[in-house]
Amino acid sequence: MRIAEIREVAVPLRGDIANAVVSFAGHTVSLVAVVSDVVRDGGPVAGVAFNSIGRHAQGGILRDRMIPRLLAADPDTLLGTDGVLDPAAVLAAMMQGEKPGGHGDRAAAASAVELACWDLLAKLHGEPAHVTIARAHGRETSYAGVPVYAAGGYYAPGKGVAELRAELAGYRDSGYAAVKIKIGGVSLAEDLARLEASIDELGGGHAVAVDANGRFDAVTALAYADAMEGLGLRWYEEAGDPLDYDLNRRLAEAYSGPIATGENLFSTQDVRNLLLFGGVRPDRDIFQMDAGLGYGLTEYARMIDLLARHGVDRTAAFPHGGHLVNLHIVTGLGLGGCEAYPGVFEPFGGYSPGCRLEGGLIHPAEDPGFGLEAKPGLADEIARLVA
Amino acid sequence: MRIAEIREVAVPLRGDIANAVVSFAGHTVSLVAVVSDVVRDGGPVAGVAFNSIGRHAQGGILRDRMIPRLLAADPDTLLGTDGVLDPAAVLAAMMQGEKPGGHGDRAAAASAVELACWDLLAKLHGEPAHVTIARAHGRETSYAGVPVYAAGGYYAPGKGVAELRAELAGYRDSGYAAVKIKIGGVSLAEDLARLEASIDELGGGHAVAVDANGRFDAVTALAYADAMEGLGLRWYEEAGDPLDYDLNRRLAEAYSGPIATGENLFSTQDVRNLLLFGGVRPDRDIFQMDAGLGYGLTEYARMIDLLARHGVDRTAAFPHGGHLVNLHIVTGLGLGGCEAYPGVFEPFGGYSPGCRLEGGLIHPAEDPGFGLEAKPGLADEIARLVA
Repeated sequence: MRIAEIREVAVPLRGDIANAVVSFAGHTVSLVAVVSDVVRDGGPVAGVAFNSIGRHAQGGILRDRMIPRLLAADPDTLLGTDGVLDPAAVLAAMMQGEKPGGHGDRAAAASAVELACWDLLAKLHGEPAHVTIARAHGRETSYAGVPVYAAGGYYAPGKGVAELRAELAGYRDSGYAAVKIKIGGVSLAEDLARLEASIDELGGGHAVAVDANGRFDAVTALAYADAMEGLGLRWYEEAGDPLDYDLNRRLAEAYSGPIATGENLFSTQDVRNLLLFGGVRPDRDIFQMDAGLGYGLTEYARMIDLLARHGVDRTAAFPHGGHLVNLHIVTGLGLGGCEAYPGVFEPFGGYSPGCRLEGGLIHPAEDPGFGLEAKPGLADEIARLVA
Repeated sequence: MRIAEIREVAVPLRGDIANAVVSFAGHTVSLVAVVSDVVRDGGPVAGVAFNSIGRHAQGGILRDRMIPRLLAADPDTLLGTDGVLDPAAVLAAMMQGEKPGGHGDRAAAASAVELACWDLLAKLHGEPAHVTIARAHGRETSYAGVPVYAAGGYYAPGKGVAELRAELAGYRDSGYAAVKIKIGGVSLAEDLARLEASIDELGGGHAVAVDANGRFDAVTALAYADAMEGLGLRWYEEAGDPLDYDLNRRLAEAYSGPIATGENLFSTQDVRNLLLFGGVRPDRDIFQMDAGLGYGLTEYARMIDLLARHGVDRTAAFPHGGHLVNLHIVTGLGLGGCEAYPGVFEPFGGYSPGCRLEGGLIHPAEDPGFGLEAKPGLADEIARLVA
């Protein structure tokens, strides 16, 4: 088989929300189609994916570097022994001539194409992507559903504790057993009031995680740790700069609850540094690397293997990015669980109507591939891209 | 004053050379002009710069994110108390809405614009950029010239030890007192033969540095260290992955000579990790961060301050990127010295005819700004860009 064409379009995120650091107004995501020369039902089979959420569309890097290298490669070098596309070989071809280090935008650019290859492989097999992913990684796929939590609790003008409670009650009533709220956008005292209300609403700290989005300096991070120590929170996420391993180590020494980080680490080497220098506690900490931001599933699976070599079980992996691609990856690799962003980050965030949410678990639908075509809003964008 | 317009063009590097990891055929660099509303000699004054060499043109990120944010910013917020553009404020405006971490391509994109602001400031003052840079950083500028070494010794088909000797003899005869050659593209034994010839040609190991471009795993890095230990080399550069601080530490424990790294670290936080975890020896190691790849001079000056807080003198800074921009930065900040790439990486690499090379020192010319318009080849590109 051959790659006939690769298409990309920058799709704006809908909605206008902000975390402690970033407003997502004006944010875009690269939606990519890898069109093959295999014809089914009168048309070519195309794999579709996107570079998760939060690090921008990457049309420039894709068109200037990644796509030309891929189309210039000897097509046979992109195939596995089974004669179909090998995502690892596709990634290697896209990275030809790239210098080491500097894992930022290019990691997100490469992700979209690499993940589209997994969608393509699954469609060729006529199966959900989690089945393809599980088989490729020598695992039994799980149909039991995976834990999912609702990531919300954003700041918004005029949004007080009452509105936050109403939002979280809505998640609970929809079937989510756990939530995550933002911290760091207001004073510690105000955040503690938001946190107490959230714990009350969800029935305990075990069901409430907090996320500072890398905003805090060491003094603030430790002050929050001290104030939250007795709350038994689900986890304390991205207190400081995601590359500040020394701060993570100090936090791990000061705070007994689980610490979560990794959504802004885009290479295995960066994750290795976190494990070596970040004071990680393999028995409780949470790892949130996102295949859609870090060179795709090929590199993500290397990260999961690295965690295992450092004594961290794969159930400690809760990828950033609450969407269908990560639902299939979490299911296929047997990871800890998924994020969901009810009502925001559309059309990429969230799951398709066929995905069943029940008792805090989400079950993927039976659509082939990642099933992106079954998601309203996203389906229209895909139809335009592959038309 | 106001920014009237920002233009960018991707300019291909001329020549076809390779280091141990990367071929530079097909490589491009973003040449950027920040056009002001200040009129002199019948036309607007424009600042010009580029994003150094080796990490690709960044037109996508510039046009999709950086330039629109900058042009949308309240123009008064981009000015310093003196009423002229403040490069730090320009950088902050370009980074609006960017998440933390992931310092890769966007760092190079931002650099080109930030550095063009320095060129613009210097032209408004009618002075060489190193004078502007020195004044902005509270330093006396040095007119004594700065040490410069010839970075060459690339691998090429049919290039043996005799050809390498001839290349290095040419550098020596041109006025370079020190050189750098690549290692890691052939066997250790072959590299040692190349190295012995180079030391013989230059009159001692103190005049010869080696660069592995991040190619080696730990075993190979340490084997080279062991084999080179007695040679008294100028430095041993980028043995392993630039983010593998643990490898750097092991190397520093095993190898007594200077170790150089940093050209692939693009943020102060990454440099801080090198200082904390890399086994750095402040009395001998060399730091090669490059303002043109890491958010510009604003961030680079923060890195130099950070080095000082860790006991590293600024004369240990030898920026990657042998070109006029870094010559002015090294001169203005009083750093250790400059790189030069005689005859390669044109039109960006190298210096203008007015720059005097004598006794291993290079003296900047008197052209205003970085003097890029005085460099043949580059002048044509600039003329087309600002026409």
